[in-house]
Amino acid sequence: TDMLLEGTHFEAKRNWKLIGRKAMAVSLSDMAAMAAKPKFAVCAVAFSGSINAEDARRIYRGLTEIAADFGCQIIGGDLTTWEKPTVICTTVIGEPSGKAPLLRSGARDGDRILVTGELGGSRLGKHLSFMPRVIEAVYLNENYDINACIDISDGLGQDLGHILRESKKGAILYADSIPISDAARKMTSRTGKTPLENALSDGEDVELLFTASPAEAKKVIEDEELGTKVTIIGGITGGGLFMQEPSGKVKKYVPEGYTH
Amino acid sequence: TDMLLEGTHFEAKRNWKLIGRKAMAVSLSDMAAMAAKPKFAVCAVAFSGSINAEDARRIYRGLTEIAADFGCQIIGGDLTTWEKPTVICTTVIGEPSGKAPLLRSGARDGDRILVTGELGGSRLGKHLSFMPRVIEAVYLNENYDINACIDISDGLGQDLGHILRESKKGAILYADSIPISDAARKMTSRTGKTPLENALSDGEDVELLFTASPAEAKKVIEDEELGTKVTIIGGITGGGLFMQEPSGKVKKYVPEGYTH
Repeated sequence: TDMLLEGTHFEAKRNWKLIGRKAMAVSLSDMAAMAAKPKFAVCAVAFSGSINAEDARRIYRGLTEIAADFGCQIIGGDLTTWEKPTVICTTVIGEPSGKAPLLRSGARDGDRILVTGELGGSRLGKHLSFMPRVIEAVYLNENYDINACIDISDGLGQDLGHILRESKKGAILYADSIPISDAARKMTSRTGKTPLENALSDGEDVELLFTASPAEAKKVIEDEELGTKVTIIGGITGGGLFMQEPSGKVKKYVPEGYTH
Repeated sequence: TDMLLEGTHFEAKRNWKLIGRKAMAVSLSDMAAMAAKPKFAVCAVAFSGSINAEDARRIYRGLTEIAADFGCQIIGGDLTTWEKPTVICTTVIGEPSGKAPLLRSGARDGDRILVTGELGGSRLGKHLSFMPRVIEAVYLNENYDINACIDISDGLGQDLGHILRESKKGAILYADSIPISDAARKMTSRTGKTPLENALSDGEDVELLFTASPAEAKKVIEDEELGTKVTIIGGITGGGLFMQEPSGKVKKYVPEGYTH
Protein backbone atom coordinates (compact mmCIF):
# COMPACT_ATOMS: atom_id res chain seq x y z
CA THR A 1 0.00 0.00 0.00
CA ASP A 2 1.26 3.46 -0.90
CA MET A 3 -0.11 6.91 -0.21
CA LEU A 4 0.94 9.62 -2.68
CA LEU A 5 0.56 13.24 -1.66
CA GLU A 6 0.27 16.24 -3.95
CA GLY A 7 3.22 18.54 -3.27
CA THR A 8 5.33 15.67 -1.92
CA HIS A 9 5.14 12.85 -4.47
CA PHE A 10 3.71 14.77 -7.39
CA GLU A 11 2.79 18.30 -8.43
CA ALA A 12 -0.74 19.25 -9.45
CA LYS A 13 0.45 20.99 -12.60
CA ARG A 14 1.64 17.71 -14.09
CA ASN A 15 -0.26 15.34 -16.31
CA TRP A 16 -2.95 13.75 -14.10
CA LYS A 17 -2.92 10.52 -16.10
CA LEU A 18 0.79 10.07 -15.37
CA ILE A 19 0.10 10.83 -11.70
CA GLY A 20 -2.56 8.11 -11.56
CA ARG A 21 -0.15 5.81 -13.36
CA LYS A 22 2.57 6.55 -10.82
CA ALA A 23 0.25 5.90 -7.86
CA MET A 24 -0.48 2.40 -9.15
CA ALA A 25 3.06 1.79 -10.42
CA VAL A 26 4.70 2.33 -7.00
CA SER A 27 2.48 -0.37 -5.51
CA LEU A 28 3.14 -2.65 -8.49
CA SER A 29 6.84 -2.10 -7.83
CA ASP A 30 6.29 -3.25 -4.23
CA MET A 31 4.95 -6.46 -5.78
CA ALA A 32 8.07 -6.65 -7.94
CA ALA A 33 10.28 -6.26 -4.85
CA MET A 34 8.88 -9.58 -3.60
CA ALA A 35 8.51 -11.13 -7.06
CA ALA A 36 4.76 -11.30 -6.49
CA LYS A 37 2.28 -11.34 -9.37
CA PRO A 38 -0.20 -8.46 -8.99
CA LYS A 39 -3.82 -9.66 -9.11
CA PHE A 40 -6.13 -7.07 -7.57
CA ALA A 41 -5.96 -3.45 -6.53
CA VAL A 42 -8.10 -0.97 -4.65
CA CYS A 43 -7.62 2.76 -4.81
CA ALA A 44 -8.81 5.56 -2.53
CA VAL A 45 -8.58 9.16 -3.70
CA ALA A 46 -9.27 12.45 -1.95
CA PHE A 47 -9.59 14.92 -4.79
CA SER A 48 -8.55 18.50 -4.28
CA GLY A 49 -11.43 20.88 -4.98
CA SER A 50 -9.41 22.29 -7.89
CA ILE A 51 -9.64 19.02 -9.85
CA ASN A 52 -12.36 18.77 -12.44
CA ALA A 53 -14.15 15.63 -13.60
CA GLU A 54 -11.87 15.24 -16.63
CA ASP A 55 -8.75 15.36 -14.42
CA ALA A 56 -10.35 12.73 -12.18
CA ARG A 57 -10.95 10.52 -15.23
CA ARG A 58 -7.34 11.01 -16.28
CA ILE A 59 -6.16 9.80 -12.87
CA TYR A 60 -8.42 6.78 -13.22
CA ARG A 61 -7.17 5.99 -16.71
CA GLY A 62 -3.59 6.20 -15.48
CA LEU A 63 -4.37 3.84 -12.61
CA THR A 64 -6.26 1.27 -14.68
CA GLU A 65 -4.00 1.18 -17.74
CA ILE A 66 -0.78 0.41 -15.87
CA ALA A 67 -2.65 -2.09 -13.65
CA ALA A 68 -4.05 -3.84 -16.73
CA ASP A 69 -0.55 -3.98 -18.27
CA PHE A 70 0.40 -6.30 -15.39
CA GLY A 71 -2.82 -8.33 -15.26
CA CYS A 72 -4.03 -6.47 -12.20
CA GLN A 73 -7.72 -5.61 -11.83
CA ILE A 74 -9.04 -2.64 -9.84
CA ILE A 75 -11.82 -4.14 -7.70
CA GLY A 76 -12.84 -1.27 -5.46
CA GLY A 77 -12.08 2.11 -4.04
CA ASP A 78 -13.21 5.14 -2.11
CA LEU A 79 -13.64 8.65 -3.49
CA THR A 80 -13.92 11.88 -1.53
CA THR A 81 -13.21 15.54 -2.16
CA TRP A 82 -11.76 18.18 0.11
CA GLU A 83 -10.20 21.64 -0.12
CA LYS A 84 -6.69 20.29 0.44
CA PRO A 85 -4.10 18.75 -1.89
CA THR A 86 -5.01 15.54 -3.70
CA VAL A 87 -4.17 12.23 -1.98
CA ILE A 88 -4.06 8.91 -3.82
CA CYS A 89 -3.74 5.64 -1.90
CA THR A 90 -3.33 2.37 -3.80
CA THR A 91 -3.24 -1.14 -2.40
CA VAL A 92 -2.23 -4.10 -4.54
CA ILE A 93 -2.78 -7.77 -3.70
CA GLY A 94 -0.76 -10.43 -5.46
CA GLU A 95 0.30 -14.02 -5.36
CA PRO A 96 3.80 -15.39 -4.94
CA SER A 97 5.91 -16.63 -7.84
CA GLY A 98 8.67 -19.24 -7.88
CA LYS A 99 9.47 -21.22 -4.74
CA ALA A 100 8.77 -18.36 -2.31
CA PRO A 101 8.43 -14.57 -2.24
CA LEU A 102 11.70 -12.64 -2.27
CA LEU A 103 12.55 -10.91 1.02
CA ARG A 104 15.01 -8.28 2.16
CA SER A 105 16.36 -10.67 4.76
CA GLY A 106 17.94 -13.38 2.59
CA ALA A 107 21.34 -11.90 1.59
CA ARG A 108 24.30 -14.24 2.23
CA ASP A 109 28.03 -13.70 2.67
CA GLY A 110 29.71 -13.63 -0.71
CA ASP A 111 26.55 -12.79 -2.65
CA ARG A 112 26.88 -10.40 -5.55
CA ILE A 113 24.72 -7.25 -5.40
CA LEU A 114 22.85 -6.55 -8.64
CA VAL A 115 20.65 -3.76 -9.89
CA THR A 116 18.33 -3.37 -12.88
CA GLY A 117 18.40 -0.30 -15.16
CA GLU A 118 20.23 2.93 -14.37
CA LEU A 119 20.11 5.10 -11.29
CA GLY A 120 19.67 8.75 -10.33
CA GLY A 121 17.88 11.83 -11.54
CA SER A 122 14.42 10.28 -11.39
CA ARG A 123 12.90 13.69 -10.64
CA LEU A 124 13.65 14.74 -14.23
CA GLY A 125 10.83 12.46 -15.37
CA LYS A 126 11.36 8.79 -14.60
CA HIS A 127 9.57 9.14 -11.24
CA LEU A 128 6.35 9.49 -13.28
CA SER A 129 7.07 7.21 -16.22
CA PHE A 130 9.06 4.31 -14.75
CA MET A 131 8.07 0.76 -15.58
CA PRO A 132 7.64 -1.38 -12.45
CA ARG A 133 10.00 -4.37 -12.70
CA VAL A 134 7.26 -6.97 -12.13
CA ILE A 135 8.03 -9.09 -15.20
CA GLU A 136 11.77 -9.06 -14.46
CA ALA A 137 11.29 -9.94 -10.78
CA VAL A 138 8.97 -12.86 -11.49
CA TYR A 139 11.30 -14.10 -14.25
CA LEU A 140 14.33 -13.87 -11.94
CA ASN A 141 12.50 -15.66 -9.12
CA GLU A 142 11.29 -18.44 -11.38
CA ASN A 143 14.65 -19.03 -13.08
CA TYR A 144 17.34 -18.18 -10.52
CA ASP A 145 18.08 -18.45 -6.82
CA ILE A 146 17.71 -14.82 -5.76
CA ASN A 147 18.58 -14.47 -2.08
CA ALA A 148 17.30 -10.97 -1.24
CA CYS A 149 15.47 -8.24 -3.13
CA ILE A 150 14.04 -4.75 -2.69
CA ASP A 151 12.84 -2.02 -5.03
CA ILE A 152 14.81 1.21 -4.86
CA SER A 153 12.53 3.99 -3.62
CA ASP A 154 14.71 5.96 -1.20
CA GLY A 155 18.00 5.67 -3.12
CA LEU A 156 20.42 2.80 -3.65
CA GLY A 157 22.37 3.54 -0.47
CA GLN A 158 19.33 3.61 1.81
CA ASP A 159 17.57 0.65 0.25
CA LEU A 160 20.73 -1.46 0.30
CA GLY A 161 20.78 -0.50 3.99
CA HIS A 162 17.36 -2.14 4.38
CA ILE A 163 18.66 -5.40 2.89
CA LEU A 164 21.78 -5.30 5.07
CA ARG A 165 19.86 -4.56 8.25
CA GLU A 166 17.30 -7.28 7.70
CA SER A 167 19.92 -9.78 6.51
CA LYS A 168 22.37 -8.75 9.28
CA LYS A 169 25.14 -8.34 6.71
CA GLY A 170 27.53 -5.74 5.33
CA ALA A 171 28.45 -4.83 1.76
CA ILE A 172 31.05 -3.33 -0.50
CA LEU A 173 29.97 -1.29 -3.51
CA TYR A 174 32.21 -0.73 -6.58
CA ALA A 175 31.97 2.98 -7.42
CA ASP A 176 32.86 2.47 -11.08
CA SER A 177 30.22 -0.24 -11.55
CA ILE A 178 27.18 1.78 -10.46
CA PRO A 179 25.00 2.32 -13.57
CA ILE A 180 24.61 6.10 -13.67
CA SER A 181 21.70 7.44 -15.72
CA ASP A 182 21.93 10.43 -18.05
CA ALA A 183 19.44 12.15 -15.74
CA ALA A 184 21.85 11.70 -12.80
CA ARG A 185 24.47 13.54 -14.84
CA LYS A 186 22.02 16.30 -15.73
CA MET A 187 21.06 16.69 -12.07
CA THR A 188 24.58 17.70 -11.01
CA SER A 189 23.97 21.38 -11.71
CA ARG A 190 20.81 21.25 -9.60
CA THR A 191 22.11 19.19 -6.69
CA GLY A 192 25.75 20.24 -6.58
CA LYS A 193 26.62 16.55 -6.27
CA THR A 194 28.57 14.28 -8.58
CA PRO A 195 26.63 12.00 -10.97
CA LEU A 196 27.64 9.03 -8.78
CA GLU A 197 26.31 10.73 -5.65
CA ASN A 198 23.03 11.42 -7.45
CA ALA A 199 22.81 7.79 -8.57
CA LEU A 200 23.40 6.61 -5.00
CA SER A 201 20.96 8.92 -3.26
CA ASP A 202 18.34 10.50 -5.55
CA GLY A 203 15.59 7.99 -4.83
CA GLU A 204 12.49 6.96 -6.79
CA ASP A 205 14.62 4.93 -9.21
CA VAL A 206 12.07 2.13 -8.79
CA GLU A 207 14.63 -0.43 -9.95
CA LEU A 208 15.29 -3.86 -8.42
CA LEU A 209 18.23 -4.25 -6.07
CA PHE A 210 18.94 -7.91 -5.35
CA THR A 211 21.57 -10.40 -4.30
CA ALA A 212 22.54 -13.84 -5.56
CA SER A 213 25.54 -16.16 -5.35
CA PRO A 214 28.42 -15.31 -7.74
CA ALA A 215 27.49 -18.24 -10.01
CA GLU A 216 23.83 -17.23 -10.19
CA ALA A 217 24.72 -13.55 -10.63
CA LYS A 218 26.94 -14.43 -13.58
CA LYS A 219 24.12 -16.36 -15.23
CA VAL A 220 21.68 -13.49 -14.62
CA ILE A 221 23.84 -10.84 -16.30
CA GLU A 222 24.44 -13.15 -19.25
CA ASP A 223 20.72 -13.93 -19.66
CA GLU A 224 19.49 -12.21 -22.81
CA GLU A 225 15.87 -13.18 -22.24
CA LEU A 226 15.66 -10.83 -19.26
CA GLY A 227 15.43 -7.87 -21.65
CA THR A 228 16.51 -5.36 -19.03
CA LYS A 229 20.06 -4.27 -18.22
CA VAL A 230 21.37 -5.81 -15.01
CA THR A 231 24.67 -4.78 -13.42
CA ILE A 232 26.77 -6.28 -10.64
CA ILE A 233 27.57 -3.35 -8.36
CA GLY A 234 29.10 -4.96 -5.29
CA GLY A 235 29.16 -7.85 -2.89
CA ILE A 236 27.71 -8.89 0.47
CA THR A 237 30.14 -9.12 3.40
CA GLY A 238 30.02 -9.92 7.09
CA GLY A 239 29.43 -6.34 8.25
CA GLY A 240 29.81 -2.63 7.56
CA LEU A 241 29.16 -0.74 4.35
CA PHE A 242 32.12 0.19 2.14
CA MET A 243 32.75 1.79 -1.23
CA GLN A 244 35.65 0.75 -3.46
CA GLU A 245 36.73 3.81 -5.40
CA PRO A 246 38.02 3.59 -8.98
CA SER A 247 41.57 3.89 -7.56
CA GLY A 248 40.99 0.61 -5.72
CA LYS A 249 40.91 2.36 -2.36
CA VAL A 250 38.14 1.13 -0.02
CA LYS A 251 36.36 3.67 2.20
CA LYS A 252 33.55 3.44 4.71
CA TYR A 253 30.35 4.59 3.01
CA VAL A 254 27.49 6.30 4.84
CA PRO A 255 24.43 6.41 2.58
CA GLU A 256 22.44 9.54 2.00
CA GLY A 257 18.92 9.09 0.78
CA TYR A 258 15.86 10.81 -0.41
CA THR A 259 13.73 12.21 2.41
CA HIS A 260 10.20 12.81 1.18
CA THR B 1 -10.78 0.54 1.38
CA ASP B 2 -11.60 3.80 3.11
CA MET B 3 -9.78 7.10 3.26
CA LEU B 4 -10.53 9.24 6.32
CA LEU B 5 -9.68 12.92 6.20
CA GLU B 6 -9.05 15.23 9.14
CA GLY B 7 -11.69 17.95 9.09
CA THR B 8 -14.12 15.80 7.13
CA HIS B 9 -14.33 12.44 8.91
CA PHE B 10 -12.70 13.39 12.20
CA GLU B 11 -11.38 16.42 14.05
CA ALA B 12 -7.77 16.64 15.19
CA LYS B 13 -8.79 17.72 18.70
CA ARG B 14 -10.39 14.34 19.39
CA ASN B 15 -8.85 11.28 20.92
CA TRP B 16 -6.34 9.95 18.36
CA LYS B 17 -6.81 6.36 19.49
CA LEU B 18 -10.54 6.58 18.72
CA ILE B 19 -9.70 8.11 15.35
CA GLY B 20 -7.39 5.19 14.52
CA ARG B 21 -10.11 2.85 15.74
CA LYS B 22 -12.68 4.52 13.49
CA ALA B 23 -10.40 4.33 10.44
CA MET B 24 -10.14 0.55 10.82
CA ALA B 25 -13.76 0.10 11.95
CA VAL B 26 -15.26 1.66 8.81
CA SER B 27 -13.36 -0.86 6.66
CA LEU B 28 -14.36 -3.69 9.00
CA SER B 29 -17.96 -2.53 8.56
CA ASP B 30 -17.50 -2.84 4.78
CA MET B 31 -16.58 -6.47 5.46
CA ALA B 32 -19.75 -6.79 7.57
CA ALA B 33 -21.84 -5.37 4.70
CA MET B 34 -20.84 -8.43 2.64
CA ALA B 35 -20.74 -10.82 5.62
CA ALA B 36 -17.02 -11.32 4.98
CA LYS B 37 -14.62 -12.37 7.73
CA PRO B 38 -11.80 -9.82 8.03
CA LYS B 39 -8.36 -11.46 7.81
CA PHE B 40 -5.68 -8.90 6.90
CA ALA B 41 -5.39 -5.14 6.79
CA VAL B 42 -2.93 -2.56 5.52
CA CYS B 43 -2.94 1.04 6.60
CA ALA B 44 -1.37 4.14 5.05
CA VAL B 45 -1.15 7.34 7.07
CA ALA B 46 -0.03 10.86 6.13
CA PHE B 47 0.56 12.51 9.49
CA SER B 48 -0.03 16.21 9.89
CA GLY B 49 3.11 17.96 11.09
CA SER B 50 1.24 18.86 14.29
CA ILE B 51 1.01 15.21 15.40
CA ASN B 52 3.66 14.00 17.81
CA ALA B 53 5.01 10.47 18.13
CA GLU B 54 2.68 9.66 21.02
CA ASP B 55 -0.39 10.69 18.96
CA ALA B 56 0.90 8.50 16.11
CA ARG B 57 1.19 5.56 18.53
CA ARG B 58 -2.37 6.23 19.73
CA ILE B 59 -3.64 6.04 16.13
CA TYR B 60 -1.77 2.76 15.70
CA ARG B 61 -3.17 1.32 18.92
CA GLY B 62 -6.69 2.26 17.85
CA LEU B 63 -6.15 0.60 14.47
CA THR B 64 -4.63 -2.59 15.82
CA GLU B 65 -6.94 -3.15 18.79
CA ILE B 66 -10.20 -3.04 16.84
CA ALA B 67 -8.63 -5.14 14.06
CA ALA B 68 -7.51 -7.76 16.59
CA ASP B 69 -11.03 -7.81 18.10
CA PHE B 70 -12.22 -9.21 14.77
CA GLY B 71 -9.29 -11.56 14.11
CA CYS B 72 -7.78 -9.17 11.56
CA GLN B 73 -4.01 -8.74 11.37
CA ILE B 74 -2.28 -5.57 10.14
CA ILE B 75 0.31 -6.84 7.66
CA GLY B 76 1.70 -3.65 6.15
CA GLY B 77 1.42 0.04 5.60
CA ASP B 78 2.96 3.28 4.46
CA LEU B 79 3.81 6.27 6.63
CA THR B 80 4.53 9.82 5.52
CA THR B 81 4.26 13.28 7.02
CA TRP B 82 3.20 16.57 5.49
CA GLU B 83 2.08 20.04 6.58
CA LYS B 84 -1.56 19.30 5.75
CA PRO B 85 -4.36 17.59 7.69
CA THR B 86 -3.90 13.94 8.66
CA VAL B 87 -5.11 11.28 6.21
CA ILE B 88 -5.67 7.65 7.18
CA CYS B 89 -6.36 5.01 4.53
CA THR B 90 -7.23 1.46 5.58
CA THR B 91 -7.74 -1.57 3.37
CA VAL B 92 -9.15 -4.81 4.76
CA ILE B 93 -9.03 -8.20 3.03
CA GLY B 94 -11.42 -10.92 4.13
CA GLU B 95 -12.92 -14.22 3.17
CA PRO B 96 -16.56 -14.98 2.47
CA SER B 97 -18.85 -16.64 5.01
CA GLY B 98 -21.92 -18.80 4.44
CA LYS B 99 -22.89 -19.83 0.93
CA ALA B 100 -21.79 -16.58 -0.73
CA PRO B 101 -20.99 -12.96 0.10
CA LEU B 102 -23.99 -10.69 0.66
CA LEU B 103 -24.56 -8.13 -2.09
CA ARG B 104 -26.65 -5.01 -2.52
CA SER B 105 -28.26 -6.49 -5.60
CA GLY B 106 -30.20 -9.43 -4.15
CA ALA B 107 -33.40 -7.83 -2.78
CA ARG B 108 -36.62 -9.54 -3.93
CA ASP B 109 -40.26 -8.46 -4.17
CA GLY B 110 -41.99 -9.00 -0.86
CA ASP B 111 -38.76 -9.08 1.18
CA ARG B 112 -38.84 -7.45 4.58
CA ILE B 113 -36.29 -4.66 5.17
CA LEU B 114 -34.42 -4.99 8.47
CA VAL B 115 -31.90 -2.88 10.34
CA THR B 116 -29.61 -3.54 13.31
CA GLY B 117 -29.35 -1.15 16.26
CA GLU B 118 -30.74 2.38 16.31
CA LEU B 119 -30.27 5.20 13.86
CA GLY B 120 -29.39 8.88 13.82
CA GLY B 121 -27.24 11.36 15.71
CA SER B 122 -24.00 9.47 15.12
CA ARG B 123 -22.05 12.73 15.21
CA LEU B 124 -22.73 12.97 18.95
CA GLY B 125 -20.24 10.13 19.50
CA LYS B 126 -21.21 6.88 17.83
CA HIS B 127 -19.31 7.81 14.64
CA LEU B 128 -16.12 7.24 16.65
CA SER B 129 -17.18 4.42 18.97
CA PHE B 130 -19.46 2.23 16.85
CA MET B 131 -18.94 -1.51 16.76
CA PRO B 132 -18.73 -2.86 13.20
CA ARG B 133 -21.44 -5.51 12.76
CA VAL B 134 -19.06 -8.22 11.53
CA ILE B 135 -20.14 -10.91 14.01
CA GLU B 136 -23.83 -10.23 13.34
CA ALA B 137 -23.41 -10.24 9.55
CA VAL B 138 -21.49 -13.51 9.49
CA TYR B 139 -24.00 -15.09 11.90
CA LEU B 140 -26.92 -13.92 9.75
CA ASN B 141 -25.29 -15.18 6.56
CA GLU B 142 -24.48 -18.57 8.07
CA ASN B 143 -27.92 -19.12 9.60
CA TYR B 144 -30.43 -17.35 7.37
CA ASP B 145 -31.15 -16.60 3.73
CA ILE B 146 -30.32 -12.90 3.57
CA ASN B 147 -31.06 -11.54 0.11
CA ALA B 148 -29.33 -8.13 0.14
CA CYS B 149 -27.20 -6.21 2.62
CA ILE B 150 -25.34 -2.91 3.03
CA ASP B 151 -23.85 -1.01 5.95
CA ILE B 152 -25.38 2.39 6.59
CA SER B 153 -22.76 5.07 6.04
CA ASP B 154 -24.64 7.84 4.21
CA GLY B 155 -27.98 7.50 6.04
CA LEU B 156 -30.76 4.90 5.88
CA GLY B 157 -32.54 6.65 3.02
CA GLN B 158 -29.47 6.88 0.79
CA ASP B 159 -28.13 3.42 1.55
CA LEU B 160 -31.52 1.81 1.02
CA GLY B 161 -31.38 3.64 -2.30
CA HIS B 162 -28.20 1.73 -3.13
CA ILE B 163 -29.91 -1.60 -2.48
CA LEU B 164 -32.97 -0.58 -4.53
CA ARG B 165 -30.91 0.68 -7.45
CA GLU B 166 -28.72 -2.41 -7.62
CA SER B 167 -31.66 -4.77 -7.04
CA LYS B 168 -33.91 -2.80 -9.45
CA LYS B 169 -36.66 -2.68 -6.82
CA GLY B 170 -38.71 -0.22 -4.81
CA ALA B 171 -39.57 -0.11 -1.11
CA ILE B 172 -42.00 1.12 1.48
CA LEU B 173 -40.72 2.21 4.88
CA TYR B 174 -42.91 2.27 8.01
CA ALA B 175 -42.26 5.61 9.74
CA ASP B 176 -43.27 4.33 13.16
CA SER B 177 -40.99 1.28 12.94
CA ILE B 178 -37.68 3.11 12.32
CA PRO B 179 -35.52 2.60 15.44
CA ILE B 180 -34.66 6.16 16.47
CA SER B 181 -31.64 6.58 18.74
CA ASP B 182 -31.54 8.91 21.73
CA ALA B 183 -28.82 10.81 19.88
CA ALA B 184 -31.21 11.39 16.95
CA ARG B 185 -33.64 13.00 19.42
CA LYS B 186 -30.86 15.14 20.92
CA MET B 187 -29.80 16.28 17.45
CA THR B 188 -33.15 17.95 16.71
CA SER B 189 -32.09 21.25 18.28
CA ARG B 190 -28.95 21.24 16.17
CA THR B 191 -30.43 20.14 12.86
CA GLY B 192 -33.92 21.64 13.06
CA LYS B 193 -35.22 18.26 11.87
CA THR B 194 -37.49 15.76 13.58
CA PRO B 195 -35.90 12.74 15.32
CA LEU B 196 -37.22 10.54 12.48
CA GLU B 197 -35.62 12.78 9.84
CA ASN B 198 -32.32 12.60 11.72
CA ALA B 199 -32.59 8.80 11.90
CA LEU B 200 -33.24 8.61 8.17
CA SER B 201 -30.50 10.97 7.01
CA ASP B 202 -27.75 11.60 9.60
CA GLY B 203 -25.34 8.99 8.23
CA GLU B 204 -22.42 7.16 9.84
CA ASP B 205 -24.82 4.86 11.71
CA VAL B 206 -22.63 1.96 10.60
CA GLU B 207 -25.51 -0.47 11.13
CA LEU B 208 -26.57 -3.29 8.82
CA LEU B 209 -29.50 -2.73 6.47
CA PHE B 210 -30.64 -5.99 4.90
CA THR B 211 -33.55 -7.80 3.32
CA ALA B 212 -34.97 -11.30 3.69
CA SER B 213 -38.22 -13.10 2.96
CA PRO B 214 -41.00 -12.50 5.53
CA ALA B 215 -40.50 -15.98 7.01
CA GLU B 216 -36.73 -15.53 7.36
CA ALA B 217 -37.17 -11.99 8.70
CA LYS B 218 -39.53 -13.26 11.39
CA LYS B 219 -37.00 -15.88 12.48
CA VAL B 220 -34.22 -13.27 12.54
CA ILE B 221 -36.06 -10.86 14.84
CA GLU B 222 -36.99 -13.72 17.18
CA ASP B 223 -33.41 -15.06 17.32
CA GLU B 224 -32.04 -14.30 20.77
CA GLU B 225 -28.55 -15.57 19.92
CA LEU B 226 -28.00 -12.61 17.62
CA GLY B 227 -27.43 -10.38 20.65
CA THR B 228 -28.17 -7.18 18.73
CA LYS B 229 -31.52 -5.50 18.29
CA VAL B 230 -32.96 -6.03 14.79
CA THR B 231 -36.08 -4.23 13.56
CA ILE B 232 -38.30 -4.72 10.52
CA ILE B 233 -38.70 -1.26 9.04
CA GLY B 234 -40.37 -1.87 5.69
CA GLY B 235 -40.73 -4.06 2.65
CA ILE B 236 -39.36 -4.41 -0.87
CA THR B 237 -41.78 -3.63 -3.73
CA GLY B 238 -41.68 -3.50 -7.50
CA GLY B 239 -40.65 0.14 -7.78
CA GLY B 240 -40.57 3.59 -6.20
CA LEU B 241 -39.71 4.55 -2.62
CA PHE B 242 -42.57 5.28 -0.22
CA MET B 243 -43.06 6.07 3.45
CA GLN B 244 -46.09 4.90 5.39
CA GLU B 245 -46.82 7.52 8.03
CA PRO B 246 -48.21 6.60 11.46
CA SER B 247 -51.67 7.68 10.20
CA GLY B 248 -51.48 4.91 7.62
CA LYS B 249 -51.11 7.38 4.79
CA VAL B 250 -48.48 6.42 2.18
CA LYS B 251 -46.34 9.18 0.62
CA LYS B 252 -43.55 9.21 -1.89
CA TYR B 253 -40.26 9.49 0.00
CA VAL B 254 -37.17 11.24 -1.39
CA PRO B 255 -34.18 10.41 0.80
CA GLU B 256 -31.81 13.04 2.10
CA GLY B 257 -28.41 11.84 3.13
CA TYR B 258 -25.19 12.86 4.68
CA THR B 259 -22.82 14.62 2.26
CA HIS B 260 -19.27 14.43 3.57
